[in-house]
Amino acid sequence: MRRRTFLKAAATSAAAGAASTVFAVPNVIVAQRTLQWQMATSWPVALDTLYGGAQQFAERVAALTGGRFQITPNPAGKLAPGTGVVDVVAQGAVPIGHAPAYYAIGKVPATAIATGLPFGMTLRQTNAWFYEGGGLDLMNEVYAKRLGIIAFLAGNSGAQMGGWFRREVNTLRDLQGLKMRIAGLGGEIMKRLGVTVQTLPPNEIFQALQTGAVDAVEWVGPYDDERLGFYKVAKFYYYPGWWEPSASLEIQVNLREWRRLPRDFQQAIRSAAMEINMSIPARYDARNAAALQKLQQEGVQLRQFPKEIMDEAQKVAREIFNDFAARDADFKRVYESWSKFKTETDSWFGLNEFAISGYLYGKS
Amino acid sequence: MRRRTFLKAAATSAAAGAASTVFAVPNVIVAQRTLQWQMATSWPVALDTLYGGAQQFAERVAALTGGRFQITPNPAGKLAPGTGVVDVVAQGAVPIGHAPAYYAIGKVPATAIATGLPFGMTLRQTNAWFYEGGGLDLMNEVYAKRLGIIAFLAGNSGAQMGGWFRREVNTLRDLQGLKMRIAGLGGEIMKRLGVTVQTLPPNEIFQALQTGAVDAVEWVGPYDDERLGFYKVAKFYYYPGWWEPSASLEIQVNLREWRRLPRDFQQAIRSAAMEINMSIPARYDARNAAALQKLQQEGVQLRQFPKEIMDEAQKVAREIFNDFAARDADFKRVYESWSKFKTETDSWFGLNEFAISGYLYGKS
Repeated sequence: MRRRTFLKAAATSAAAGAASTVFAVPNVIVAQRTLQWQMATSWPVALDTLYGGAQQFAERVAALTGGRFQITPNPAGKLAPGTGVVDVVAQGAVPIGHAPAYYAIGKVPATAIATGLPFGMTLRQTNAWFYEGGGLDLMNEVYAKRLGIIAFLAGNSGAQMGGWFRREVNTLRDLQGLKMRIAGLGGEIMKRLGVTVQTLPPNEIFQALQTGAVDAVEWVGPYDDERLGFYKVAKFYYYPGWWEPSASLEIQVNLREWRRLPRDFQQAIRSAAMEINMSIPARYDARNAAALQKLQQEGVQLRQFPKEIMDEAQKVAREIFNDFAARDADFKRVYESWSKFKTETDSWFGLNEFAISGYLYGKS
Repeated sequence: MRRRTFLKAAATSAAAGAASTVFAVPNVIVAQRTLQWQMATSWPVALDTLYGGAQQFAERVAALTGGRFQITPNPAGKLAPGTGVVDVVAQGAVPIGHAPAYYAIGKVPATAIATGLPFGMTLRQTNAWFYEGGGLDLMNEVYAKRLGIIAFLAGNSGAQMGGWFRREVNTLRDLQGLKMRIAGLGGEIMKRLGVTVQTLPPNEIFQALQTGAVDAVEWVGPYDDERLGFYKVAKFYYYPGWWEPSASLEIQVNLREWRRLPRDFQQAIRSAAMEINMSIPARYDARNAAALQKLQQEGVQLRQFPKEIMDEAQKVAREIFNDFAARDADFKRVYESWSKFKTETDSWFGLNEFAISGYLYGKS
């Protein structure tokens, strides 16, 4: 009965003048209407791994629906500022977005967990928690209640680098008064370690580092960093980026719009998101590897953050998480699920994957 | 023009008696016919992570095509023996399969690279090579030419464990005369290290270990191993499984059948495969972590393979790869692409991901 009604509705909405007899197909429910959506993204076109991911998503949705569902990605600043994508999707001003969730941290602290906490989980742990540890369902409960959106994992940077420093940092004391461009919770932690934290938009970072207005900047990893040219004005490239052991991106859909979609369109969004959740990291992994080689040829000096700094930063990070948990029940609930999963998988990954990785990468 | 012809063809194939006027939809190309395929898999139903992956694949294809394309997975032994999936798909006896490629190693040695070489690449490197390093296109050239199939990555176990030993192996000497159930190239390497290698079907492995007919067995990882109960009869659980740092599975489609598919059905296969290439490892990662905890509670003793054994095994592995390359031009071509990518990405993963992983897992 429902199928018949649906086909009838499709026929009714057909272009005037076309014969309205519906082509009979047994056991088939396919939306016959077409739909066009604009998509807001957090990416400038120049971040081609990410913007390219948004394009791949849109192409897949179109291909999967035989061209019936057309989504057009727009770069940051067009439909919304890069940091405002979640907002416009939540408001319903734009039906769909591609962005990290944590720009909504002011409204919903748990979005920080969705994107990835400092000293959190690596990419594989993160995906396992979201898909198999109940993480995605838990987050979507919070999103539905507090933002009116539904989200699907849709990309990850992998572990980010620790950024570019004009001088070495060997002790906690070296951080005192250091001027650094660093965003998000990483910035909050650095602040508590004595760093003078600045947030600068992408197009101002290079110049600030060049003129010495800042002593250090963090961005993403070798591929994106090389294109911004930081290696020309700062010699020391630090690792690991402990504030982003992985950073998840999402396809976010306004919940009212979502509920109106035919099932096969919903499924196309779901599958295309999962596809770029696979392909964006693959692209970063391949390109970062090649870019690292180039940077080393340019004379970049790699430096590992001293354990003293890592340990203190982790201590401060946990204090921040506990503050959030005390203030926000949703954060607490998601953080508990996340922490339990992290502990369990840390043991497993720390055993087998770590042993074979170490051997293969020539570290043991 | 092409669209019109296609719709006409669809209308012609419609059930007799149905009105043949096609419902006019602008800019839409959707196959209106339905199609049912049987799928062969290498999995017994009991390997639920893998068999569940095949089911998820089939469900996704159905959902993406509004129920028009129905694929039915069959367990190992039904349409083909577990090791014969590639064969029946290549012959065209079955249109589609879910299996590792390396069961065709006798015909096409390069399939060993497709599934994963001993001392090869970890999961993220592997995916990056296939999707972004040209690996998948290269393999599909070889498959088209030599097997008449097209393949899509569709799952991975991650790094496997080194298996269950009734007594410890501390030196190369301890391997002499050891009777071990181990399959594939891992078995070939073990043989050259002095091990008496046996291949046993899954249902005979437990008993062989219990009775002492073999001294050691390897299977997959904590989750699958726990269910076969090896921990009850062998105390030492070795890691890492250097013969499978990752093991890729594929959706394999007969090339003639593939070319006959409407584009949106092709895209549904492509996307659903990519989806389980994400979800199967996530499932393994989550379940292995939980199973490892249980096994440790059962008193299992974890042991790391000594470096002496790893080094010698890696030396032997490289000899085997060079033999293949000398005998088979396709192996050589694929191996060169793979080796170059591995070297480049070993450096990158060995730097940043390894540093943050080590810290997070409490190893540094």
